[in-house]
Amino acid sequence: MTDVLDPRILRTMLDGRHAEARNRTREMLEDPRFAPVTELARDEYREHVLGLARVMVERGETGVAYPPAYGGRGAVGESIAGFETLAFGDLSLVVKVGVQFGLFGGAVLHLGTKLHHDRFLSDIASLALPGCFAMTESDHGSNVQEIRTIATYDDGAGGFVLHTPDEGARKDYIGNAACHGRLAAVFAQLIVGGGESRGVHCLLVPIRDEAGESCPGVAISDCGHKLGLNGVDNGRLEFDHVRVGRDALLDRYAQVGADGVYVSPIENKDKRFFTMLGTLIQGRVSVGGAAVSVAKVASTIAVRHALSRRQFGPPDREETVLMDYRTHQRRLIPDLATTLGLHFAQEETVAEVHRASTDDDYPDADRRRLETRAAAIKATATWHATHVVQECREACGGEGYLSVNRFAALKADSDVFTTFEGDNLVLRQLVAKNLLTDFRDELGELDPLGTVAFYAGQIFETLTERTAAREIVSRLADDLLPFRDDEPDLFDREHQLGLFAWREAHMRGGAARRLRGGINAGGDPFSVLVACQDHVVDVARVHTEKIVLEAFARAVERCDDAVLKDVLGRLCTLYFLWHLERDRGWFQEHGRLSSTRSKAVLKAVNALCEALRLQAAALVEAFGEPEQQLAPSGDSKPSLANWEA
Amino acid sequence: MTDVLDPRILRTMLDGRHAEARNRTREMLEDPRFAPVTELARDEYREHVLGLARVMVERGETGVAYPPAYGGRGAVGESIAGFETLAFGDLSLVVKVGVQFGLFGGAVLHLGTKLHHDRFLSDIASLALPGCFAMTESDHGSNVQEIRTIATYDDGAGGFVLHTPDEGARKDYIGNAACHGRLAAVFAQLIVGGGESRGVHCLLVPIRDEAGESCPGVAISDCGHKLGLNGVDNGRLEFDHVRVGRDALLDRYAQVGADGVYVSPIENKDKRFFTMLGTLIQGRVSVGGAAVSVAKVASTIAVRHALSRRQFGPPDREETVLMDYRTHQRRLIPDLATTLGLHFAQEETVAEVHRASTDDDYPDADRRRLETRAAAIKATATWHATHVVQECREACGGEGYLSVNRFAALKADSDVFTTFEGDNLVLRQLVAKNLLTDFRDELGELDPLGTVAFYAGQIFETLTERTAAREIVSRLADDLLPFRDDEPDLFDREHQLGLFAWREAHMRGGAARRLRGGINAGGDPFSVLVACQDHVVDVARVHTEKIVLEAFARAVERCDDAVLKDVLGRLCTLYFLWHLERDRGWFQEHGRLSSTRSKAVLKAVNALCEALRLQAAALVEAFGEPEQQLAPSGDSKPSLANWEA
Repeated sequence: MTDVLDPRILRTMLDGRHAEARNRTREMLEDPRFAPVTELARDEYREHVLGLARVMVERGETGVAYPPAYGGRGAVGESIAGFETLAFGDLSLVVKVGVQFGLFGGAVLHLGTKLHHDRFLSDIASLALPGCFAMTESDHGSNVQEIRTIATYDDGAGGFVLHTPDEGARKDYIGNAACHGRLAAVFAQLIVGGGESRGVHCLLVPIRDEAGESCPGVAISDCGHKLGLNGVDNGRLEFDHVRVGRDALLDRYAQVGADGVYVSPIENKDKRFFTMLGTLIQGRVSVGGAAVSVAKVASTIAVRHALSRRQFGPPDREETVLMDYRTHQRRLIPDLATTLGLHFAQEETVAEVHRASTDDDYPDADRRRLETRAAAIKATATWHATHVVQECREACGGEGYLSVNRFAALKADSDVFTTFEGDNLVLRQLVAKNLLTDFRDELGELDPLGTVAFYAGQIFETLTERTAAREIVSRLADDLLPFRDDEPDLFDREHQLGLFAWREAHMRGGAARRLRGGINAGGDPFSVLVACQDHVVDVARVHTEKIVLEAFARAVERCDDAVLKDVLGRLCTLYFLWHLERDRGWFQEHGRLSSTRSKAVLKAVNALCEALRLQAAALVEAFGEPEQQLAPSGDSKPSLANWEA
Repeated sequence: MTDVLDPRILRTMLDGRHAEARNRTREMLEDPRFAPVTELARDEYREHVLGLARVMVERGETGVAYPPAYGGRGAVGESIAGFETLAFGDLSLVVKVGVQFGLFGGAVLHLGTKLHHDRFLSDIASLALPGCFAMTESDHGSNVQEIRTIATYDDGAGGFVLHTPDEGARKDYIGNAACHGRLAAVFAQLIVGGGESRGVHCLLVPIRDEAGESCPGVAISDCGHKLGLNGVDNGRLEFDHVRVGRDALLDRYAQVGADGVYVSPIENKDKRFFTMLGTLIQGRVSVGGAAVSVAKVASTIAVRHALSRRQFGPPDREETVLMDYRTHQRRLIPDLATTLGLHFAQEETVAEVHRASTDDDYPDADRRRLETRAAAIKATATWHATHVVQECREACGGEGYLSVNRFAALKADSDVFTTFEGDNLVLRQLVAKNLLTDFRDELGELDPLGTVAFYAGQIFETLTERTAAREIVSRLADDLLPFRDDEPDLFDREHQLGLFAWREAHMRGGAARRLRGGINAGGDPFSVLVACQDHVVDVARVHTEKIVLEAFARAVERCDDAVLKDVLGRLCTLYFLWHLERDRGWFQEHGRLSSTRSKAVLKAVNALCEALRLQAAALVEAFGEPEQQLAPSGDSKPSLANWEA
């Protein structure tokens, strides 16, 4: 492989159908006002970020996904592509924008009806009305169904009373709450006509007046300094019997009539809850995309550094550039392959989200698959970003520790990506649950975020009966061939896809058998689940590795530039082999990799790294991050220096 | 296992012989002045940290390792124990103290002679004379031998001229340089009588006067904001023909006479350089110890959180505490075992450093072994700390992201531990080199930091001949038994130790064979090394895992409390099994683990985690971090909340 790919061709491919939106955002990020900042005091930083969000309003880059009537273009895919590109820059701005236009505006758009749209959406898009998405509480983050803020319908007054029963039920970590938000989309247990909660619903509650004073009955506090994202004003909200009108309820999926009667087209309480949450999928998908961008920025800085920094080398010759060291190649290049794979998988997901948002008859089964996919990629992409930023910081040595070289912000600001928009471990359990239940409709009746009830009962049994039989047969066949001399070529794409698909099916079958066996043996479902939890989570991991490989393979297939196709093909194989190397213990345990072949995997990874080292510069050039976001000062290029303290 | 260990007994064991010093430092860290700070502006933070260092002077906690004549107690072990304990608190203070009393003072103490000691040591210990350790340059960090600052002896003037030939040779990342340092221990190529450099030597150079003004010819700049450790004033130094007297040379290992004649008791230039560097081992050992402390603090916060935070659970019952989830146990408990193993290995290393510093006849072979061990543990402990802090932050969810909960500082400040005092990847190569050359004396002649020349030539060949023969025999024996039904008990300590020892010997033998084979086949030594680099680095990793297991096993052996012995024994086994699980691909490849047994390893890890979960609270209580350093505000206990942005 001597030809180097043309980065322009790869960039065109990566930018895809939303190239224009991406380029507009790139151009904006070259504006000096968008230059990276460090050491701004918290208050100043928050105002700085708000100011940048206003610049985006001026440029028409906000509310892109909203209907044209409210200043948008109804362009969900374009909106996410712009968001992903924005993540080449300051992540506080990314999150601020995500909170205002994505989460807050998204709640109004997707959970509200025309009345709310007419009244609020244009002002949200223009930032005339800054707002909050107030779901999480101090005591309940992942388990949203158990939040304890109460919205009680008061028949007499014809409105709702919002109340925080105790400190654990205060809204916590709410972006835009500490300083700028005026209206909050508050999730609360809805009580109508006394008695039990109808489940979690969302209401719009004014929290601050135009002068910035808290509204009566609303106590606002500041979450204070954070590990990162200090340009976002996260805060806490407590409600003391706050009254709002009947139209405060975002009533697309449930209405309370003037007569005080509760009506919903979705009868089942759980299904209603998850239908509502499902409309908010764009946030999760956007975070996954932002994580991919973070990984790109980190890799670009580290690859450039590795190609210029020299240290040690053969006697009496110039020192060797870091990129020529095998350990450095292994540190940077497989991660680049993974980043590309995630890019392609993300691109497909965004296209699907766009389709879901524009197709009124989008099938339920597709929606379930999309939710699984969004959760899968969000967890894997954000962990990948955390890992890549760390590797790249270390690969840039002491110079990487200087804030001017961006890793300080990348590391701190992206850290919470693994937690927000769904804790990664919880998401992996959600993915596994969906896979285990095989996307059956019955699942709509169950709690997709909980991790308990859904494993029990007849649904579970019918599921496992079906999968178990199939799996046992395939497992027997494998066990007869623990070491196969006829192992097919690890460079063969079909074999790669087949191996990852087999791993998923096998692991899923094993998990199903264990769960069922535990319950049949009289275990309570929760304990049985906990006993298999590591296995279950692993099902989600390998599923994600499979769908990323599939997306990568499709991208290679559709590539029509010969050199690029060759390089992408090798990167795809490296992605496969790298993950195979990391999981080679499992593949040997399951007779799918002989010890000899397993050792060969390491050598193949090394050989591919060496071959692809020549492509590294062009690969990162294709990402096309604005220069200003890579080397803000220009005067301090990274160098692999030994930090002495 | 129903008995819970008594944390007081474990604390006594962990504190060991320096319990009194550790308790003094604990008490100091409860002083309100030592409370964690966030959001101090860089300048204020630097002054704050300097102030705390002065408090330590008042308390007699500085220069503990110096001779009594200079205000110390000649107590190296006690000094390191105090430093480790200090790392429960603000790491900027730890590094500031390390620079002033450890690196700067250490250079004067170990490289200088009585003249320098008399003149400076007391003032260094009292902070009357703040100083720098100026080794690293912009272009040379790991490869110190190639630094390019020049110190030329001027016969006529009877002194040295210090000069920075170009920007790449400026001293960079130097702690204490930006603000407080007045004298710097500067490493430079020494030129005497014209001609070639005599190698790197250290000279004391005034850089700032008492009024804080730069000395003539010295240009000082600030490294600016960093990812962490912003209480330390790192800066850059450039010298423009700066003149210092003849006595500026720290002349323990080489002297320049009034007649301009250079004399050294160590004839070989490389050996001289490494002898000088070898005296500075205390810094590397101290960083390893500080990393262990960081891991303890992170685990303590996360374990406490996991024992109080509830989320999800069986229907109609109280939600389940996080610690009862298998994934959470796997996330926290094996790392606790590793931290304990590293603690015991570190303790042995410190005892050995103490012995080396007090024994005038400390054997060269022991010194070499100590250097290997210090490098091995520093690399593994600092990577472990980075990993643990990240896991624990995530395990505390959104609450872990608030600065008040310490992870912000732990993560940012400890990040550079993997880079400074020796880049971890470079250190692992140093370890491997020492292991490969079997601690032979000839090695003294070679470049221990370089990674090139030492692999070539006859030394290398005689080494590999010896090891290869032995290894080939053992490998053949193994290959005959790829799957052994008679696999001994993985819970048997002797077997555990034997398995890790065998892995190291086998990997080392393989690396030696590959290197020799490559050179015999006509490859140039550097390219051959690069081709095996990942293998070589792995030798160092598995060596470290072995010595940690050995230290852990010895600690279990010497424990005389029955409950504690039982618990520590299980933790030691968990340490072994956890690392076996992670490397089970390799063990299967090498016929040392059947696929069945390999799967059993995962189950055994799960079972041990479940059993040890009951000990978690007592384990972290035994670490005994000052409460103030764990929960600075008290009002914000961590909660696994879903961060919403």
